[in-house]
Order: sequence, then structure tokens, then C-alpha cells
Amino acid sequence: MSKIGIGVVGLGRIGQLHAEIFHSRIPNAKLVAVSDVVENLAKSIGAQLGVKYYTDYQQMLKDPEIDAVVICTPTFLHKEMIILAAEHGKHILCEKPITVTVKEAEEALSKVAKSGVTLQIGYMRRFDYAYQQAKEKIKKGEIGKPITYIAIARDPAPPPGWAADPKLSGGIFLDMLSHDFDMARWLLEAEVERVHVEGGAMIYEEIKEKGDLDVVTINIKFTNGAIGHIHGSRKSAFGYDLRTEVLGTEGTVYVGYRQDPMFAIGTKQGLVYWGIKWFFKRFYDAYVEEDKHFIQCLLEEKTPLITGEDGKKAVQIAEAAWKSYKEQKPIQITY
Amino acid sequence: MSKIGIGVVGLGRIGQLHAEIFHSRIPNAKLVAVSDVVENLAKSIGAQLGVKYYTDYQQMLKDPEIDAVVICTPTFLHKEMIILAAEHGKHILCEKPITVTVKEAEEALSKVAKSGVTLQIGYMRRFDYAYQQAKEKIKKGEIGKPITYIAIARDPAPPPGWAADPKLSGGIFLDMLSHDFDMARWLLEAEVERVHVEGGAMIYEEIKEKGDLDVVTINIKFTNGAIGHIHGSRKSAFGYDLRTEVLGTEGTVYVGYRQDPMFAIGTKQGLVYWGIKWFFKRFYDAYVEEDKHFIQCLLEEKTPLITGEDGKKAVQIAEAAWKSYKEQKPIQITY
Amino acid sequence: MSKIGIGVVGLGRIGQLHAEIFHSRIPNAKLVAVSDVVENLAKSIGAQLGVKYYTDYQQMLKDPEIDAVVICTPTFLHKEMIILAAEHGKHILCEKPITVTVKEAEEALSKVAKSGVTLQIGYMRRFDYAYQQAKEKIKKGEIGKPITYIAIARDPAPPPGWAADPKLSGGIFLDMLSHDFDMARWLLEAEVERVHVEGGAMIYEEIKEKGDLDVVTINIKFTNGAIGHIHGSRKSAFGYDLRTEVLGTEGTVYVGYRQDPMFAIGTKQGLVYWGIKWFFKRFYDAYVEEDKHFIQCLLEEKTPLITGEDGKKAVQIAEAAWKSYKEQKPIQITY
Amino acid sequence: MSKIGIGVVGLGRIGQLHAEIFHSRIPNAKLVAVSDVVENLAKSIGAQLGVKYYTDYQQMLKDPEIDAVVICTPTFLHKEMIILAAEHGKHILCEKPITVTVKEAEEALSKVAKSGVTLQIGYMRRFDYAYQQAKEKIKKGEIGKPITYIAIARDPAPPPGWAADPKLSGGIFLDMLSHDFDMARWLLEAEVERVHVEGGAMIYEEIKEKGDLDVVTINIKFTNGAIGHIHGSRKSAFGYDLRTEVLGTEGTVYVGYRQDPMFAIGTKQGLVYWGIKWFFKRFYDAYVEEDKHFIQCLLEEKTPLITGEDGKKAVQIAEAAWKSYKEQKPIQITY
Repeated sequence: MSKIGIGVVGLGRIGQLHAEIFHSRIPNAKLVAVSDVVENLAKSIGAQLGVKYYTDYQQMLKDPEIDAVVICTPTFLHKEMIILAAEHGKHILCEKPITVTVKEAEEALSKVAKSGVTLQIGYMRRFDYAYQQAKEKIKKGEIGKPITYIAIARDPAPPPGWAADPKLSGGIFLDMLSHDFDMARWLLEAEVERVHVEGGAMIYEEIKEKGDLDVVTINIKFTNGAIGHIHGSRKSAFGYDLRTEVLGTEGTVYVGYRQDPMFAIGTKQGLVYWGIKWFFKRFYDAYVEEDKHFIQCLLEEKTPLITGEDGKKAVQIAEAAWKSYKEQKPIQITY
Repeated sequence: MSKIGIGVVGLGRIGQLHAEIFHSRIPNAKLVAVSDVVENLAKSIGAQLGVKYYTDYQQMLKDPEIDAVVICTPTFLHKEMIILAAEHGKHILCEKPITVTVKEAEEALSKVAKSGVTLQIGYMRRFDYAYQQAKEKIKKGEIGKPITYIAIARDPAPPPGWAADPKLSGGIFLDMLSHDFDMARWLLEAEVERVHVEGGAMIYEEIKEKGDLDVVTINIKFTNGAIGHIHGSRKSAFGYDLRTEVLGTEGTVYVGYRQDPMFAIGTKQGLVYWGIKWFFKRFYDAYVEEDKHFIQCLLEEKTPLITGEDGKKAVQIAEAAWKSYKEQKPIQITY
Repeated sequence: MSKIGIGVVGLGRIGQLHAEIFHSRIPNAKLVAVSDVVENLAKSIGAQLGVKYYTDYQQMLKDPEIDAVVICTPTFLHKEMIILAAEHGKHILCEKPITVTVKEAEEALSKVAKSGVTLQIGYMRRFDYAYQQAKEKIKKGEIGKPITYIAIARDPAPPPGWAADPKLSGGIFLDMLSHDFDMARWLLEAEVERVHVEGGAMIYEEIKEKGDLDVVTINIKFTNGAIGHIHGSRKSAFGYDLRTEVLGTEGTVYVGYRQDPMFAIGTKQGLVYWGIKWFFKRFYDAYVEEDKHFIQCLLEEKTPLITGEDGKKAVQIAEAAWKSYKEQKPIQITY
Repeated sequence: MSKIGIGVVGLGRIGQLHAEIFHSRIPNAKLVAVSDVVENLAKSIGAQLGVKYYTDYQQMLKDPEIDAVVICTPTFLHKEMIILAAEHGKHILCEKPITVTVKEAEEALSKVAKSGVTLQIGYMRRFDYAYQQAKEKIKKGEIGKPITYIAIARDPAPPPGWAADPKLSGGIFLDMLSHDFDMARWLLEAEVERVHVEGGAMIYEEIKEKGDLDVVTINIKFTNGAIGHIHGSRKSAFGYDLRTEVLGTEGTVYVGYRQDPMFAIGTKQGLVYWGIKWFFKRFYDAYVEEDKHFIQCLLEEKTPLITGEDGKKAVQIAEAAWKSYKEQKPIQITY
């Protein structure tokens, strides 16, 4: 069996992570090339990993060694890049969220459908061992019928660079909380049919100026009658604080923890802990599993666990959340 | 200094608790009598504590040794009993919630105001050491400006007896979650100006039949711009699970814990914990402090920490929550 | 059934606690009198609880209303007071440890045996719900055969008053760690046959001067082949840190936790907790259960859970520990 | 700067881990070859990583592209392999423990000294972020003077393969607990001057037959007057349970946690957790940092954090522990 050739585009921290993982952790994949519009960056990452580099994405798409691309560029570029990849017959692993708007998602999905390439969206939490245990326990009926999804998500710091601009990233609902929209749909096996939002830009002046929010609470009604709540904040003073709970009629599953219990110091000031290591530490293994899954789907011609349709639904919920915030009322979502 | 004479009415578990505390834990109080319509109960508690007993509340109100009454009867009886006590010039410590409806609260408060007696409402969590630490840290500015109140409240079992009937108890919003309405107001020093509810009767058939809900999520907007969320469930399979968080611009306070960490057993089945000891264990000391505070307010002619007005506001929020649930929209509260 | 009349002698914090509990929490007991050589103290506690007071223990022993005494005086007085109580035919609940030396214990036990009174020693941890769960799980075989006892015991502060003098209190091994000697014997159902100690007076100058130790580690061999380890420190900077584990061939039970999880604050300094509430908070319910058990044993003429013999064995182990420390070698204990 | 060429010998799970890390995670290193006496294993790992393979270690040592070897073979082979590598002028990263006996360690160190190659011993915990925080806080004086080292180490399963034979692995003290001997020395910056052991083979019949122990407690005296205690068990029914504490005169540092808090399920059976992910998960990043440190030491001609002398001292302590167990008395160690 020959290896799947991979090209990674967008070499920010998440792009570098995927490049490194495909380079060394996925037996049936071969990292062929990396690409970034910043030449120095592309060149240095390419050299470090011993692979080709491109500054022009379209050039990379012509590389015959490349079977699939991993899109790690800013969200507002996703639509175009997905379409181009589909046109070149390259399979696609696209970082979340799929696009900034539902309209863009529909355009992209339409092209993907015509081309027949495989598209997987990067909601890596579905590949995290803890979320997977939650899924498995729920599936087995260990908590009875799941009736409430609760998520508390507090990032340690505001979004960097382009992600700070809601026009480019979709803002807090899409850039940050669409992880939870996806997770809620997956764990409850139901669609979100209504959202109601309270929120504001109360922490960071820059976020307020850009028109984004930095703290929100979202009330949710699911199509199967279950309810939910997601609270997100762009700040958590002591570190990453990400927790999810699903209450069922017979029990509750808990994922995540508010502190890293591995180190503490007790002095007369108290017993002090710090937050769980940020994103890439917490979810490093999930990214590896996500990438493995993508390769496996290509080799076995299976549908990925997270499809373009899943990606689009997360965008729909985010759009409804924005609308609820602006109109100060619950918004129904129709599919 | 002579001791404040106390009569306790309503000898369910909470009435017994207060009787015992006033009997033995409050230096400046003297338990004079207990009262319950069930004669056997009144008699046996009276004998055990060595005090008089009554089956007729109005008789007890005439007892000249009694300076103050502690009302622990079902909620739907509170209004009348508060009014009667006020008419007899007895000070009142009334178990939460003050009444079933806002209208009843207003009637009661009007009589209390005229009589000049002191009225304290029994939201004992305000006297719990952990909530008090939260209050103190917030006051001192240690979390910056508080911007989000989050509460997860899961009782281990459905409400017993009369409390199962929302017409008598006010249902989940009043009987159970008004604790959180009160706590949110206290910790954020702001009023609730809007609530939006999702919920259902998804766990217990009896609760559904009685017209109550057993699981809810409530989105909140406060008058100072802060937001909040309260999730309540009448079931938590492994035990009492009650947690509160206040996110500020510079930090977060956490109150409560989902398990009792004092005992665990690890076998090949995993490492097993159980829930925090239920109500009276978790909050026993808070009840003692609450009762002490009441006596202190009487002796020093101070306004209690939780006034009748506070009691009424919790009922207003509960009424708005019911309305939001029924009309499926956010409800504004005007004060 | 008439109530058991109780007299409490020694009105330090622990004596006051027992007085209060017997006064109000034990249905079949009646607090008759309190006694302390400090008249003001005896008088004020007596007044507060509405009972007689004595300054002369022997006078109290003559009080015909008193059936049993609770000895809460400094350890070095225990022997004499036990003997006097026995001579007066009063049952005895004696605070731990029974005496300062094995020799004293033997004298006291001999008199108690002749008199036929009931003697219970106050190792209240055996009545704590968490330790009881450990006991129950071990009994049921849920951890297989118990093979290792581990205890970490760190007090928040050095011993106050007379307890700071090892000649009066028995020092760290007896005053503090005999709790663990008793617990180890109870949970493992075996005797300690060998101890080896490392330790020192490394924290407090006063402790060093008095000839006591403030930090120790004790290696233990039990008669059934199991092993153990107890580590004690007279200081824990952030609060009381008391944990016990029993490793079995099929699992482990854990009792205690190093922090109070009920309140935390997270700021940029980290997420800060504090220690579990000190002695009387942590074990308040255990003291109530201990006192109930004592009354029950008297009423039902049962042997108490913790006998004088148990008390003596804890002293034997403490003596062996001192010897091991001084001679720098393991010491065998023969029974 | 050219890359350091690396050859890994011994392709068990730990050898594979190092091979993978040097292949992909260390910018200045290049994995050149892997070696194992099992040809199929060597061949398949070599193919997977795209590097040469050897079945003959001495052949690999002749490979001019190889600057340094990573020795991951069974302990009893270490001495010979270190000596051979030194003779061939190859730098050495040797998995812990350095050798089975002190005598072997001395022979190896003598050859290494003559050859001038760099030797690092693989006590990877020193590179773990949590232990490093402990080290840093102690260094800064945040816990005052460190006076007690406490470790509880329970593996989830007995040692596999050759490690089950104490003659080949050094048994529980060397194979398992020498991690703690090394850590204690590092954190307290003192040598172990006396050990006293209690222990037995109480869990696994096989371990008893082989002459090893499966559960031990070790009392320790350090040269600077501090004391310590290490408890080890070859079984922990619910998963890996590894914790370390250092008590100082002003505070305590805690490393490790008995459960993975990332997932829990609460049902009527209780709230269930599982152990921290075993070795390679818990310490994966530490292995990466260890390997980076080795390369950095070679490039900058620095002495590694863990020298051959450190390796030898851990073996000395293990030998003393065995002696204490056999002779049932404390053993002094002279350096």
C-alpha cells in the first residue's frame, strides 16, 4: 500500500502541528509539501521537515505527489481553497470552521459534492479520548437518555491575529464555540433547533471595537426535546478552563477539568494550581487521531466522522447565535 | 441580657433542624416552643428538646415568652403565617421562598412594614463559608468586575411531599432555583432584568403530571450588563451536585464541588467517589450562622442580610422564569 | 428509659465540644455538669448550657445524677482521673490518648477492670463516615487483602499549651500520630509488630527545645505481614492536610483530601484553594457519633468500639516509635 | 550546523519511543539507524521511519553517520553496551538504570571517563514539566527549607518480560523506584545516607517466585538531615497512581495526581474516574525534552543534567534497599 501524499497550507501554529503530525506520526501518510504566502515561514518549515515548500497554494495543488490537502489558513479563505482543492481532485482536511457563512459553506459543499473528493472538518475534540469515552458511555445507555448538554469554555487569552476580526473568523460563536455546537450535536445525536443568547464585550476593548463579543451564555433547545447551555469567555485568568457535561436521566458524564492537577504548591497563601495546558497540549493526541482518521477514510473510502455537512451545521448555529444576540430573542433554526 | 424566645412552626426536617439549632447552638436565643398540626410530631419534638409544644400556630403566637417565630411550613402557608406573626408583634425568620406568588409577597410585606417587626428570609447559602468567601473576594475586587454568574444545581432526588406540587411550592424555579436567584443578586450586586428559559419534565413522570419541570436552563441578563446562566435538575444519580462560578474580568471564583473527595475506592472498575452530603450536611453550619444572624439582628436592631424585599425579588424572577418557559421567549422584569 | 447523666471534665476546646454535643445532640444523654479547675471557665460554660459546674473533679464524681464522665483534661492527668472515676463507679469516655505511658495505662486498666465500669477511648476517626466507608469496603473484601497502610498527617499548627510538652502529652507520636496507630490497627485488623522512625525537630525552635519532634516518617510491619507507613508533620502551611490510604491486592481505599474543594479563586496568580477545615469541623460529626456510641454501649451494656486495651496499644506503638527514633533502629513490639 | 546522527538500540516500547522522537521531534538530531537482535522488529521499525536497521549493535557502532547511541536494552546489558559505545567514541543516552550493580556502574563509568564521550542517564521525570515546577519552586525558596520527600508510586501492572527477573532488572528498587531515588536527590539536593525497608511479595505469585518484591515502604535519611519516604507497589487496580510531595518549612509542593480528571461518569454506582494514562502518555513530553537536552548537551559540550554519577548513586541506594530488606535493619550508605 503506497502512502497518501499530504500538502499542508497555512503554517500558523495549527498548520505546523498538522505538518509535524503527518510527517512523523501517521504511518500511511507522507508529508509532501508545505505552503504559506510568507516565504520565509514556508521555507523554514519545509527545511526542518525535509519536504518541499510552496508560497502559491495553486502551485501546490498541481503537485502530483499530493493526494490530499490540509487547509489551516484563516477561515475567510476556506471557501475558495476548498473549491480549488476539489477542482484539482485533492481530498481535503479543513480546519474548523468550514467557512465564515452558511452561504459560503453551501457553495463549497456543492463543489465538493460534484468533484467526489473526501472532505473532513477539523473538530478535533471528537477524537479526544475523554470526549470519546463520553460518547461511548452515552451510546451504551449508561446515563439513560441524554437530556442536557452543558459546556463551559474559557480560553486563557483573546484570539490572535486575524481571528480577532469577526468578519474574518466568524467571531466568538464560530471561531471558538462552534467546537461546542459540533460536540453537542454529536453527543446528543440531535440538531439544535433554537438558540437564545446573552452576551457582551466586557473584557477586552479591542474585541469590543472589532464588533465581537468576549463573554456569552447560550440557551439551547434540541430537536429531540433535550436542552443545553454553552457559556464561553475569551479570558480565564489562571489558564484554559474547558468543561463539558451531559446530564442523562440515569447519570451524568463529565469531560474536562478546570485545573492541571499535576502540580500544586501550598504555602500560607493557599494551595495553588494552574490551568490545563492550552490547546495543543490538551488536544495533541486528538489531532494525531484526527489525522489518522482522515488517512484511514481515504484508504478505506469511508465517510469521515465529521463531514462538510457537519461543518455547515455548526456555521448555521453560529449564525443563529449572532442573530439572537442582535435581536435579543430566541432564534429558530430550520434545516 | 435576656435571651430571645423562639417558637418554631412546621416540624418537617428543616423545622426540626432550626429547632435543634436554636435549642443548643445560639447563646442568646432560647427555644421556647415548637408547633405542628401533627400533634404526635409536635409532642415528640417538644419532649426531646424539653420545650412546650403547640398544634395551633395562633396559640403559640400568644405565648408571651416567644419573641420571634421561625416559619418552616409549606410555602403556600407562608403569607398567612407571616401576617399573623406580624399582627402579634413577633419577629419572623421565614424559610425560603417567602411566598408562592409576588402578590402574596406584597401583601405579607405590607403587613410586616406596618407592624415594624423584623423579617429575615432563609436563603442560608449566603451564610455558607464558601459562598461568603466568594462574596468577600468579589467585594475586594480580586476577580475584577464580575461579568458572568454560572450555577449548576442538581438535587439527588425529586422534591418530597407538598413540594412536589408547583401550586404549593412554586415549582422548580421557586422551590429549588430561587436559591440561585438570590445568590446571583447578592454576588453580582445587580438585579435580574431578563430571563429566558428552556426546560422540560423529562425525568420523572410524577413531576410531569403535576405540571412542574425537572430540568431547566435559564439565560440571564442583569441590570448592570452582566450575564448569567442557571441550570437545574431534580436528579443527580450519584449525589448532590451543586456548583456556582462567578467570572470576572480578572478572575473567577468557584463555589462547590461535584463529589465528596473524602472517600474513594479504586478497583478494576475505576476510582469511585460519591456526591457531597446532601443539604443539611453541606449547609448545616450555614443554618447555624443564619440563625445566629437573625438573633443578632434582633438584639442590635439591625436589618437582616436577607430582607423581605430580597425574598420578593426571588419570587419575581421565578414568576418571570415560568412565563418565559410558557411563552418561549425572554421575559423582562421591571421593579 | 431514663437518660444517662454526663459530667465533662476539662473544658478546653475539646471538652466544650463534648459538653455541647451531650447537651443537645444525644437523645438518651443528659449533660448534668461540667468541671474545670479554672472557675471562670467552668462557671461560664455551665451557665451557657444551663447545667451545674464544678471546679473539683472529685466533687463532681460524687454527684449522684452523673452516670458517666468524659475526660478531656491534659493527657498526663488521665491515669489518675480514670482511676478516680472507676472508684466512684462512673463510666468513662476518655479523650485520646489513654495515658502518657504504657505503665500508666496498665495501672488505669487494672482499676477499670476491677470496678466493672465501661471505658471508651476517644479515637473519633473510627466514627468518621469516610473512615467507616473504608472499613466497610475492606471488610467486604472490595480491595482484596489489605497489604499496605499509608497515612500522611500534617497539622496546620503546632500543638497548643500543655500539648507542646512531650512529657505531658507524649509528643508527636502519642499526641498526634496515635490516631493513625489506632486507625491502622482497626483497618488492617492486625497489630503493629515493628516500627522504624526517621525524624527531627526541623520546623519550630520551641518544639526542639522541649525535646519533641515536628516531622517524622515511620515504617511499619504488621503481625499479618502487611506493611505501613505514617508521615506526620506539625505544620502544613495552607491548612490541615490529612490523608489515609489502604492498598489491597485488588484495590485501594482513599480517605481524606488535601484541600477544601468548596471554594477556589483563579486569578493570574493561579487557582487557589485552602486546607480542609481543621479538626473540629472535619470531625464534628464523628464526635457526635462517638458520643452516641458511648451512650448506646452503656444502655445496651456493650463493649465500646475502642476499648482501654486499644488505647494501651496505641501508647505501646508510640513508645516503640520514640525508642526507634532514639536508638536509630527498628523496634519490635511484643504484646 | 549539521545534525547529530542517532542510533537507537533495543526496540521495545521505550526504544521505539526514542526512535520516533529523534526521528521527528528534535530539530538538531537525525535518526540514522535502529538496532535490535530481533531482525523482524528492527527491519519493520527501520522501514516505518525510513532509516537503516541493524541486528548487530557492534555493526551499528561502526556506522560513521552515527554520533550517539540511545541504549534501550534490558538493564543487564547496559554495562557492556556503554563500554562498547565509549570505545567507539559514540556519545550515550542510556535508559535508566545505568546498570544492575554498583560494580558494573563503576566499570562502565571508568571507561566512559577515559573515552571522553558524553553519557546521560534517562531519568526522564527530571524533564517533566510538573517535576520541573517543583524543582523551580524549591530552588526559589517558596517552600522554605525542604525537609521531607514523600513518594507514592503504584504501577498499574507488574513488569513485563525480562524486567520481571530481579537478576536482570535489579528488581523493584532499581527497575521501578530508582526513579524516586533520583528525584529525591535532585529535589532535595542531598544524598541518601540511610534507608530502612519493609516489604514483601504479597500480590503476584510470579514476583515471589522470581525473588522480587511487589510492595515496599522505604524510610530515608538524607545527608542534610532531611527525611523521606517512598512507597512502591507493582499494582494499582484502577490505573497508574504516581505522586510526589516535598514538605518544606514554609510549604509543600505536590506532583502527580491519582486519577485522570478529564473524564468521569456519575451513575447510581457513584462517580467513577480512571487512572492517569500510563507511562508514555504521562511522560511523553518529558521524553521529548530529555532527548532535546541530550542533543543540546552534545552541541554545546555541556554536562547533562543526569550524569553517569547520578546513575550510579541510584544503584547504590537500590543496593542498600535490598540489603535493608534482607537484613531487616537500616543500612548506611557511604559515598
